[in-house]
Amino acid sequence: MDCSRFIVVEGSEGAGKSTAIKLIKNLLEEQGQTVTLAREPGGTPMAEDLRTVIKSASVDEKVDARTELLIMYAARVQLVENVIRPALERGEWLVCDRFFYSTWAYQGGGRELGLDLIRPIHDICLADMTPGLTIFMDLDPELGLERARGRGALDRFELEQIDFFHRTRAMYTQLCDERKEMQKLDASQSLEEVHAHLLNLIRPYIEQN
Amino acid sequence: MDCSRFIVVEGSEGAGKSTAIKLIKNLLEEQGQTVTLAREPGGTPMAEDLRTVIKSASVDEKVDARTELLIMYAARVQLVENVIRPALERGEWLVCDRFFYSTWAYQGGGRELGLDLIRPIHDICLADMTPGLTIFMDLDPELGLERARGRGALDRFELEQIDFFHRTRAMYTQLCDERKEMQKLDASQSLEEVHAHLLNLIRPYIEQN
Repeated sequence: MDCSRFIVVEGSEGAGKSTAIKLIKNLLEEQGQTVTLAREPGGTPMAEDLRTVIKSASVDEKVDARTELLIMYAARVQLVENVIRPALERGEWLVCDRFFYSTWAYQGGGRELGLDLIRPIHDICLADMTPGLTIFMDLDPELGLERARGRGALDRFELEQIDFFHRTRAMYTQLCDERKEMQKLDASQSLEEVHAHLLNLIRPYIEQN
Repeated sequence: MDCSRFIVVEGSEGAGKSTAIKLIKNLLEEQGQTVTLAREPGGTPMAEDLRTVIKSASVDEKVDARTELLIMYAARVQLVENVIRPALERGEWLVCDRFFYSTWAYQGGGRELGLDLIRPIHDICLADMTPGLTIFMDLDPELGLERARGRGALDRFELEQIDFFHRTRAMYTQLCDERKEMQKLDASQSLEEVHAHLLNLIRPYIEQN
């Protein structure tokens, strides 16, 4: 599958993913491109139902990290096969708020499942689906959670201890070091600086693809 | 994990699983044993939510067979870690209406995913959890669906074409041939004959465990 028109924005809570996605969408549309937006987990009726299941905080039931992993990939398969693949096949651009990198970082790093455990499931679900460009909006977890709290009630993930978010960030950083399609962006800068940096990354990429 | 007190009842729609489970439960309780019942998919709040997601018939969204596979194992991990493992550790008997054999038969056989694709996910989720005894209530799909229709509205699986159920049954039969813990029971016999056959299977097993 040609995924060169598939852009993912990843990042910690409160790192400004939504604003970045709007900026990328505008930039593409200014150049006459058709853009489909998606978000994870979710993006189809069944995937949104799975999002509700996984994000709900249950008092009585311990949620196994492998359960999270499987539900995330289940929702992802629905999104890929019903939304992402058809859009790419039509030659459109697809900009997605989170993708498998989130699972690798949150369940692989944060929950400490490790990438070796995730890899067989990944290969079954996403063998031919690696985005052409992924931007990781990097932010210190303390700062990100402060911003997220300002937006209202926290979900089951946002209620985790700070160590969980530090492990998640460490995995994101490792992935940026290892994967050529991933670009790290310092989201602690001013809004103007973040935008300028983002434009510098996105503009040449769009022109080439 | 010692799973000798873990009994599973598998079978086609309308094959009489519920009646068989009641009979096994009574037999165990007559001998002073504590019995926990469970059903799949389901058995915890999150697993029941996943059951609802997977069984709902959606008009607009194609459900990928891998999505079904992942959701079934997600619900299973929740049931195993929150219900089955604790009950077995307390020395109780656990009788479950369906277990991983259903996924192997319905998704592996019926949906034609094959067992090679399922195996890595199985090993991540259930490495130490093979029931001591599994009874497969075997019934011709046409007859089973007729019985299921008599019980009311059909779910997303029951609405499948008949070929799907023939492939599922063929996989169940293959598993019975290959796995020593699986026993096939002809569910097309009279109720009295089924019960007699079931008692013949269960009584000696209980006495040994």
